Amino acid sequence: MTTVIQHVLNRLQDIGVKHVFGVPGDYAFPINDAIAQHPDVEWVGNCNELNAAYCADGYARVHGVGAVCTTYGVGELSAICGIAGAYTEHVPLFHLVGMPQMGVQAHHSVVHHTLGDGEFNLFEKLSGAVVCASAIMTPQNTAAETERLIAAALYHRRPVYMAFPSDLASMPVVGEAQPHPTPASDPRQVDVAVQAISDMLGRAKSSCVLPGVLLARAGLEPDLQQLLDATGMPFATMMSDKGVLNEDQLSFVGMYDGKLMNEDVRRFVEDSDVVILGGTLMNDFNTGAFTTNLDPGRLIDIRHHYVRVDGMTYQSVEMKDLLNALAEKLPHKQWPQPSAEITRMAPAGGSGDDPITAATLYPRWERFLKPNDVLIAETGTASMGMAFARLPAGATFHNQTLWGSIGWATPAAVGAAVAAKDSQRVVLITGEGSHQLTAQEISQFGRNGLHPVVFVINNNGYLIERLLCADGDIAYNDIADWRYSELPKVLGCEGWYTARVTTIAELDHAMDTAANADTGCYVEVVTGTYEAPPLLNQLHNYTATLYST
Amino acid sequence: MTTVIQHVLNRLQDIGVKHVFGVPGDYAFPINDAIAQHPDVEWVGNCNELNAAYCADGYARVHGVGAVCTTYGVGELSAICGIAGAYTEHVPLFHLVGMPQMGVQAHHSVVHHTLGDGEFNLFEKLSGAVVCASAIMTPQNTAAETERLIAAALYHRRPVYMAFPSDLASMPVVGEAQPHPTPASDPRQVDVAVQAISDMLGRAKSSCVLPGVLLARAGLEPDLQQLLDATGMPFATMMSDKGVLNEDQLSFVGMYDGKLMNEDVRRFVEDSDVVILGGTLMNDFNTGAFTTNLDPGRLIDIRHHYVRVDGMTYQSVEMKDLLNALAEKLPHKQWPQPSAEITRMAPAGGSGDDPITAATLYPRWERFLKPNDVLIAETGTASMGMAFARLPAGATFHNQTLWGSIGWATPAAVGAAVAAKDSQRVVLITGEGSHQLTAQEISQFGRNGLHPVVFVINNNGYLIERLLCADGDIAYNDIADWRYSELPKVLGCEGWYTARVTTIAELDHAMDTAANADTGCYVEVVTGTYEAPPLLNQLHNYTATLYST
Repeated sequence: MTTVIQHVLNRLQDIGVKHVFGVPGDYAFPINDAIAQHPDVEWVGNCNELNAAYCADGYARVHGVGAVCTTYGVGELSAICGIAGAYTEHVPLFHLVGMPQMGVQAHHSVVHHTLGDGEFNLFEKLSGAVVCASAIMTPQNTAAETERLIAAALYHRRPVYMAFPSDLASMPVVGEAQPHPTPASDPRQVDVAVQAISDMLGRAKSSCVLPGVLLARAGLEPDLQQLLDATGMPFATMMSDKGVLNEDQLSFVGMYDGKLMNEDVRRFVEDSDVVILGGTLMNDFNTGAFTTNLDPGRLIDIRHHYVRVDGMTYQSVEMKDLLNALAEKLPHKQWPQPSAEITRMAPAGGSGDDPITAATLYPRWERFLKPNDVLIAETGTASMGMAFARLPAGATFHNQTLWGSIGWATPAAVGAAVAAKDSQRVVLITGEGSHQLTAQEISQFGRNGLHPVVFVINNNGYLIERLLCADGDIAYNDIADWRYSELPKVLGCEGWYTARVTTIAELDHAMDTAANADTGCYVEVVTGTYEAPPLLNQLHNYTATLYST
Repeated sequence: MTTVIQHVLNRLQDIGVKHVFGVPGDYAFPINDAIAQHPDVEWVGNCNELNAAYCADGYARVHGVGAVCTTYGVGELSAICGIAGAYTEHVPLFHLVGMPQMGVQAHHSVVHHTLGDGEFNLFEKLSGAVVCASAIMTPQNTAAETERLIAAALYHRRPVYMAFPSDLASMPVVGEAQPHPTPASDPRQVDVAVQAISDMLGRAKSSCVLPGVLLARAGLEPDLQQLLDATGMPFATMMSDKGVLNEDQLSFVGMYDGKLMNEDVRRFVEDSDVVILGGTLMNDFNTGAFTTNLDPGRLIDIRHHYVRVDGMTYQSVEMKDLLNALAEKLPHKQWPQPSAEITRMAPAGGSGDDPITAATLYPRWERFLKPNDVLIAETGTASMGMAFARLPAGATFHNQTLWGSIGWATPAAVGAAVAAKDSQRVVLITGEGSHQLTAQEISQFGRNGLHPVVFVINNNGYLIERLLCADGDIAYNDIADWRYSELPKVLGCEGWYTARVTTIAELDHAMDTAANADTGCYVEVVTGTYEAPPLLNQLHNYTATLYST
């Protein structure tokens, strides 16, 4: 006999869910129990539900899919901002929610974790607004609904919502269902699209690819790399999309951020006769505050399930099929290539008792990164600085560029570390303002024996806000003054290397130590209040384009 | 010239909002700026938005009304669980949300803090589901909408939602509006209701009043007290409603919790010929897991705007008018009174190196409380233990009994302390499992110079869950092992008295010190894993009635 929740867990495990993050709760006990008893799925407890959702998000970015479990009402609503973030950033998560028993619902009983109105339909509607599909799981619908929801999550690369009335969760599943077939291309559509692309590139003297985050979400980085190798096309990267392809290759033009940064890269990209978007999504922070200028007539826009070529859309074209067909059909050409120098940061300066400045800090972090590192960069100063570091081979960069919910990075790093376990180092770089939202989740690193390297920039408040608001010194940008470097110990991370550094010598020492540590590391990096990486200062100058259309 | 946001802040200040809690954000800058510049409204920054909502909730419970400000999407969704809690618990809050500019909305631009679909209507719908009224504020509607929303919040004693497109927020208000008149009673309805109640009581030999939390939300405690004094009726209290009336009077029967606790009180209440509910709300945790047994034919149910007498509803009857008319019309009678002993806890036992048990801990906390204290008791072990402490005169008890979102108490205590400032002592009693959800907000006590007394029960995990789930020892009820007593210092609470106590002698010393301290105090109280107050053990035995109808 397989119960409703066992069936769901078995199928999630089939597609790669090995861990479920969450906070237990009485309506969710049947789910919690089933996870605890499942041989191949592990429960990872969190301090709160929003943190759990962020953890699952970070896990899914490294591992492909993730899952989070919460209780009814209070739990799911606490997590909803994290689920919405996964929706926005195309991260497939399974949100498992425990509900009151069917009898309680039928009697409209006024029970805890409800609004007290005897209604039980509201929260599915709220959560349902920020997922691509949802269902209340019953013994009779579980076989089919599980397949529908799995297919939806994988097709859209977005979260789904599954609620389990607590009496039904432990009842036997009735009936069977087959997994939905993998979405297939229409071969004729692929042929026409390839021909259109081939024609367009045939007429072009220059080209540039912008590999996008949707490529990584579908695990198709090797397919695009193969296309680049086959054709010789160069590529540049936008902020959301950083680290999707290996930046340590000669064909990497650099970071493209409209008029805000890297004028050479901007000219290379915008002057290209053809620009291929490989799963790139355009938004304010990915377009240098809408300062990119890409001629729609020169664009090839490859999405998960269709491609647009010069304004014409070809449906039923799967990204993988198209990339593979293009790699096979397109000729290798001597496309104009970038100069190698443009993407390196200036050498790390400063020494001894020098204070830590943006100019001396970010190049050090660039050099700190090792091949295959997983870098989690919090929205704001951290992401805007590190987006312009050149990543070593195999290193990836993760940021919530569009949703931009500060606080995401700390738990996301926990989730990434659970996924990466001992095979990749996780490096978290966050600002202290963002860190305060979710800092308690640091404790899960210690509890789960994970050894990340955490850098917390202490610059005395919300720096990005100081640079975007009318009066940077206004009091609401100040925050409580914490002893950050003492946090890990208090939160149960025993034996970690921790440090608070205010000078270059201290910073260098801490980075050396962290580079060679076999424990978790947490370094509080104290800078001046306005030490901002170049992009942040540029945004300060471009608020007019950022905030209007 | 008065701008949209200035107008709203002026009107909120008129009705008592002196502080706005929140996290600043770029779309909310016009709100943040206006608060910073307002002479009579103060900004109180929080670590995150959920905490801010809980703070505003705690503030409003002490102060009558509260306000919280968040940014678009990420901010408001992070706060939504706290807003839903205020809705459920009838706490009037004003949720001020910054939105993107109208031009950005009209162009369907893909900007940060959105789902990336160019739509800007979704979040008002989501937030709108857990408030009693909402509006997008514009120069032309602000005068009227502000009055409508204030009237709605005060009428329903529930939160309202006000969103401000960031360009419109700073534009001048067009037009004027008058405050809505205070809701009035229909005098004929009051007369008929008073007659019906008078008749019912005239036939009765015994009676009992159950004063409810809705009374406190409307500030009508003195009016009910006057009625009790005039008639001589005794009263008992249910858990949601604890502390609404002074428990230090002879007519206090004790805590009524169905069959779970205090059999003497249960018999007194349920055997009374008439029971008057004075703004009491029935739900699972307020009825001893649905074990109360109140004959509808003997009930008088007084709500904010109507009264139900023996099944007959009289609309347009304001609670205050009814209470005052009853106090005037009803005679004083020799109603049967309770014996004074039944509501005291057993004397505090234990000494020296004895471990701290539930039986020795809760009576000590009962004795620790002083007149006029504001006690914030977290849902779970803390609230279920402290509900049965007899409060000194003027002390109030605050708990989120129905919504029951763990984590609420810590920020709510911050909000309560901001409201109470130096006039009342705030005592927070929480379990460490709940504390972990929102513990960082402790830092706002220090930052704002507030001196609460915080007790954190460290019992090695989620105790209430251990007692409600199938296998209490199951791993998901364990949590990360923190050094709680070191938290305040790390979070910037300088000069606090902190202690970790494991024996009765240490506990007594810490409580003595805290009782006389003029700083903030934080005491980690270590107990055995299963040290539960009586009600919790009773719930363990009554899960069948708790989870079905």
